[in-house]
Amino acid sequence: MKKIKVGIAGLGRLGKVHANNIAYKIPNAELTAACSIVPEELEFAKAQLGVSDVYTDFREMLEKADIDAVAIVTTSSEHCWQIEAALDAGKHVFTDKPLGVDVEQCRQAERAVERHPELTFMLGFMRRYDRSYAYAKEKIDAGAIGKPYMVKATGIDPEALVEGAIKFAPTSGGIFLDMAIHDIDLMRWFLGCEATEVYAQGCTFKHPEFREANDDETAVACYKFENGALGFVHVGRTAPHGYHVETEIIGTEGSIRISAVPEKNQAMLYNHTGAVTECVGSFPERFDEAYLLEMQEFIDCVCAGKQPCVSVYDGTKSTAIGYATTEAWKTGAIVKIV
Amino acid sequence: MKKIKVGIAGLGRLGKVHANNIAYKIPNAELTAACSIVPEELEFAKAQLGVSDVYTDFREMLEKADIDAVAIVTTSSEHCWQIEAALDAGKHVFTDKPLGVDVEQCRQAERAVERHPELTFMLGFMRRYDRSYAYAKEKIDAGAIGKPYMVKATGIDPEALVEGAIKFAPTSGGIFLDMAIHDIDLMRWFLGCEATEVYAQGCTFKHPEFREANDDETAVACYKFENGALGFVHVGRTAPHGYHVETEIIGTEGSIRISAVPEKNQAMLYNHTGAVTECVGSFPERFDEAYLLEMQEFIDCVCAGKQPCVSVYDGTKSTAIGYATTEAWKTGAIVKIV
Amino acid sequence: MKKIKVGIAGLGRLGKVHANNIAYKIPNAELTAACSIVPEELEFAKAQLGVSDVYTDFREMLEKADIDAVAIVTTSSEHCWQIEAALDAGKHVFTDKPLGVDVEQCRQAERAVERHPELTFMLGFMRRYDRSYAYAKEKIDAGAIGKPYMVKATGIDPEALVEGAIKFAPTSGGIFLDMAIHDIDLMRWFLGCEATEVYAQGCTFKHPEFREANDDETAVACYKFENGALGFVHVGRTAPHGYHVETEIIGTEGSIRISAVPEKNQAMLYNHTGAVTECVGSFPERFDEAYLLEMQEFIDCVCAGKQPCVSVYDGTKSTAIGYATTEAWKTGAIVKIV
Amino acid sequence: MKKIKVGIAGLGRLGKVHANNIAYKIPNAELTAACSIVPEELEFAKAQLGVSDVYTDFREMLEKADIDAVAIVTTSSEHCWQIEAALDAGKHVFTDKPLGVDVEQCRQAERAVERHPELTFMLGFMRRYDRSYAYAKEKIDAGAIGKPYMVKATGIDPEALVEGAIKFAPTSGGIFLDMAIHDIDLMRWFLGCEATEVYAQGCTFKHPEFREANDDETAVACYKFENGALGFVHVGRTAPHGYHVETEIIGTEGSIRISAVPEKNQAMLYNHTGAVTECVGSFPERFDEAYLLEMQEFIDCVCAGKQPCVSVYDGTKSTAIGYATTEAWKTGAIVKIV
Repeated sequence: MKKIKVGIAGLGRLGKVHANNIAYKIPNAELTAACSIVPEELEFAKAQLGVSDVYTDFREMLEKADIDAVAIVTTSSEHCWQIEAALDAGKHVFTDKPLGVDVEQCRQAERAVERHPELTFMLGFMRRYDRSYAYAKEKIDAGAIGKPYMVKATGIDPEALVEGAIKFAPTSGGIFLDMAIHDIDLMRWFLGCEATEVYAQGCTFKHPEFREANDDETAVACYKFENGALGFVHVGRTAPHGYHVETEIIGTEGSIRISAVPEKNQAMLYNHTGAVTECVGSFPERFDEAYLLEMQEFIDCVCAGKQPCVSVYDGTKSTAIGYATTEAWKTGAIVKIV
Repeated sequence: MKKIKVGIAGLGRLGKVHANNIAYKIPNAELTAACSIVPEELEFAKAQLGVSDVYTDFREMLEKADIDAVAIVTTSSEHCWQIEAALDAGKHVFTDKPLGVDVEQCRQAERAVERHPELTFMLGFMRRYDRSYAYAKEKIDAGAIGKPYMVKATGIDPEALVEGAIKFAPTSGGIFLDMAIHDIDLMRWFLGCEATEVYAQGCTFKHPEFREANDDETAVACYKFENGALGFVHVGRTAPHGYHVETEIIGTEGSIRISAVPEKNQAMLYNHTGAVTECVGSFPERFDEAYLLEMQEFIDCVCAGKQPCVSVYDGTKSTAIGYATTEAWKTGAIVKIV
Repeated sequence: MKKIKVGIAGLGRLGKVHANNIAYKIPNAELTAACSIVPEELEFAKAQLGVSDVYTDFREMLEKADIDAVAIVTTSSEHCWQIEAALDAGKHVFTDKPLGVDVEQCRQAERAVERHPELTFMLGFMRRYDRSYAYAKEKIDAGAIGKPYMVKATGIDPEALVEGAIKFAPTSGGIFLDMAIHDIDLMRWFLGCEATEVYAQGCTFKHPEFREANDDETAVACYKFENGALGFVHVGRTAPHGYHVETEIIGTEGSIRISAVPEKNQAMLYNHTGAVTECVGSFPERFDEAYLLEMQEFIDCVCAGKQPCVSVYDGTKSTAIGYATTEAWKTGAIVKIV
Repeated sequence: MKKIKVGIAGLGRLGKVHANNIAYKIPNAELTAACSIVPEELEFAKAQLGVSDVYTDFREMLEKADIDAVAIVTTSSEHCWQIEAALDAGKHVFTDKPLGVDVEQCRQAERAVERHPELTFMLGFMRRYDRSYAYAKEKIDAGAIGKPYMVKATGIDPEALVEGAIKFAPTSGGIFLDMAIHDIDLMRWFLGCEATEVYAQGCTFKHPEFREANDDETAVACYKFENGALGFVHVGRTAPHGYHVETEIIGTEGSIRISAVPEKNQAMLYNHTGAVTECVGSFPERFDEAYLLEMQEFIDCVCAGKQPCVSVYDGTKSTAIGYATTEAWKTGAIVKIV
């Protein structure tokens, strides 16, 4: 079996997840290089991942490392130039979401991808690879709900982790850019259509720090799609019960709802308060398997010389919608999406 | 519309439920007389039910009151002679469960019922009239689960009411006679067959008072039926979450389970402990509607000159099985049911 | 026990439900008169409800009938003048929703109610009396979810009944006036605050007849409230699984969701397709008990000389919001609510 | 990181699962040898697992292969002598369940384990490592349900796979030895106590082939434990909805139930039949992750020089109980467990 040699860039919380998967959980991949500007992260690569070929400079890794592909899990603002550099260096590229921090950057990435049709490019919208979401898509494609015409998506971070969100708020770009990108991608994916208009509102009732940072704790957005379909996104940061991601796709003959109760596992506790289902605590817990499955898909695509279902254009589109939603939320006006 | 005139005997907790239903919730019935040896209960009848024709003697009510039917909700040991007296006095009879406290009494009631085929007789196995149980029976009769071959029944009283159970334990006849009669009836009803053998065990881990009264806190019984089908009953008295009645009927093509979560209503609370469904607190709460529906069925049968689906023989059979189960539980041996 | 004498106006589908409840299910009420312009409905009153005192003219019933109160279940456009006439005739008034078909009518009703503080007036927002909704309100008032700041409400009629909706579409006033009034009331009730702005959209993917009637099959609206809280309403007419009413109230410390699965009862069927919960088929089935409980509340308020929690102003406010939502939906613009 | 070198014996369906996990999913393990008497399985090892060091003789693998540990996934009747041989050859041993096919064999394995306290031995009761079961144990150990006093366990194979079960029936040893070993282990684990008595019954309503092979389609057993606790096991082979494994542990302060609905994933489909949850189709699907987690635990124990929570005595005890249950089922009598 041919093993794809991968160099990882960025070894923060999510970078470590990806690196572990590449190093230990994917039969046809091996992690052969790592790049980070954080010394501890390179120590981690050596000690925990068995990677001795480490770099502090991304371009140097591209030049010198023995790699077929790179996995980019750096700060969002670095994604696009790194994508371009890697592709131009002949490397297959996996990059975590978002594609870029603005639409111009995304276009730059698009052009790089278009220059290199011989290379596999994949954007890390891992929810599409989650067992429940993939099942929903398969069922919908098989006609189980007729023609899908509405998506209602909810994504709320746990109150338990709100301190981090408060700290990050001043530079997050606002709640929609920070939190809604997966929901936006899912709407487009399930409806098979593009959004044309958005209305949004937000509110802050628990942690005034969000408002002080010109951000919000909770926000909603309504979308109109080209074919008349509708979308609704609700994002928040203060779910007391855990990490609540729920999605409903409504069609002419039925609907599918994913995790109305974001159950931690299949155990139910009956006690003096009633019948209690404990909930998942964070996105790495909820999407643990999806992160592995998406990386497996990337490696398999590289091996097969194919492109995965998530394209670079999905990145640009979702970023554009994220910006339009942010504008709608800030101005209170209806914003056309172009 | 002809209204059936009913006299009620017994106005304890459940008697009050029946009396209220007859007086106020059943269009074709009216409560015209009441009998009780408890003065407060007769005061209640006058003040709350508008019944001025009250008695302390059951036979006197039969003789003097202007009634077409009687509803017997007295102490279990009085049921059978009251049934006989009422039928012989030409009154239709509804009696709460159990039919009698031993099989000999039940046979006496059987003979009285057989003497009066012109009168309606009904035994109060109200679970059969509960919306969910009636739905299950209808589905099963329509073939939804193929041939039913196993019933698993659970009935656990709430820990919140355990004090009463402890007080009652010395005279309860044991946990199976006290608690399993409905489950026994349901097994027979759903399987359409009679039990031939029983094995039973019990245990007491929380309230030693039960053992001191030669009773148990929790008990299970396994049944074999004539056609080879199986039954399992689990009764208990210490459910911390509320009143837990759950029944599963398993057939060759499917199964139906009723109230795995004995939800209080359709609200779910998401809080720091997870997703919580509060549970019903007691049998009057759980079977509130079933008590009304069974009495409506009795009155409708009286009007139509028909017999309801619960016969006097269901009473004898369930009592016989209750005794056999009690013997099995006391002796630890397998007991044949005749 | 004093019995309140009630005259009913209108004996259509819902009128029959109310009439039956008054006649047979409420101890302290009696149905003594009925008014309808449909001869068959008056025949029904005589034959099924035992009401011989019937009228074809509402004002004549007010003058001649021996009644303390009237229950108005006529065509929506008749509600307000009938409310006024009844109050001015000294009768307590229960009226089904909506209060009136426009805000001017509602103001007329308001003035009549204000003229008669000695009389009980109640508007039939029965969902507030549903066991699950009442439980949610009680929990929220007790602090179970902290400060409520968002309501997400869904109300979808069953596809099985779509023919009636299509027929009614040309005169329904549009999907929001037709369907969203309960959801609007619930938002206001749970948030304890008034809406100030609305954005709405609709779509039609299954039955083009709705669009031909300038109506929609499905629609959503986003609301902003005075205190910054948010509301979202999703209404539709084509749920294949039944009558889907779901409501979520989100607060700073938790949330409550009512009927994510609009279960028909507590039975679950396990068959070759999986674990299946059958759903309720229609609003009378879903809110059967709520219709009784709200009427009981009305009668109890009359007896006690009190006003129920649903006031005439709730009717005006919800109607005003319904109109604003309809304008938003028709124009695609953000509409301020005054 | 030190990698434990593992040789696998047996590469049937479950052997392949274990081999893949060792080869590709466990950072601190590598699969360096394989043994099978089936030529295709050795081809598979070479082609799919990259293992070139293959054997047809188990003892030869022990002698010649460069391995620290062996994973035994052979036919049950071979387990015990292979365990002994491997331990005596200085290898750590993981063996799939059951420990052996009779109690004498198990004792032989016990003695071998006792001779080699320096080596890690683990028995593959993977359910203990399933996320939900492990969570339940942790909660129980933390006191969430008080003192556990009853376990109700259900394990039903899918009707979709019944052909294989029918073929295997004549040599399966009967439904309890074939199917109940995991449930028996879970009862002992959760109750922390040994069973002393068993009563069992079976029935066959759908596939008479089971009875013709002196086996049953469905069976139940009741257990009494040393401390008075109770156990109930229900096994079957014809679940139309999929692979149904459900376990309830009941304690003095609460209970925990695992997978009342054996959901395939977190998606729910609302269609014309209701709200439908698709179920898992087979044990490899249900316990996919548990197989990985148990092997990871084995390897981690080897690295740390520790013993896992599942001991060789758990194997003997569960086998002894399986035999006693089989005797009870065959004779219809109560059987003491020694």
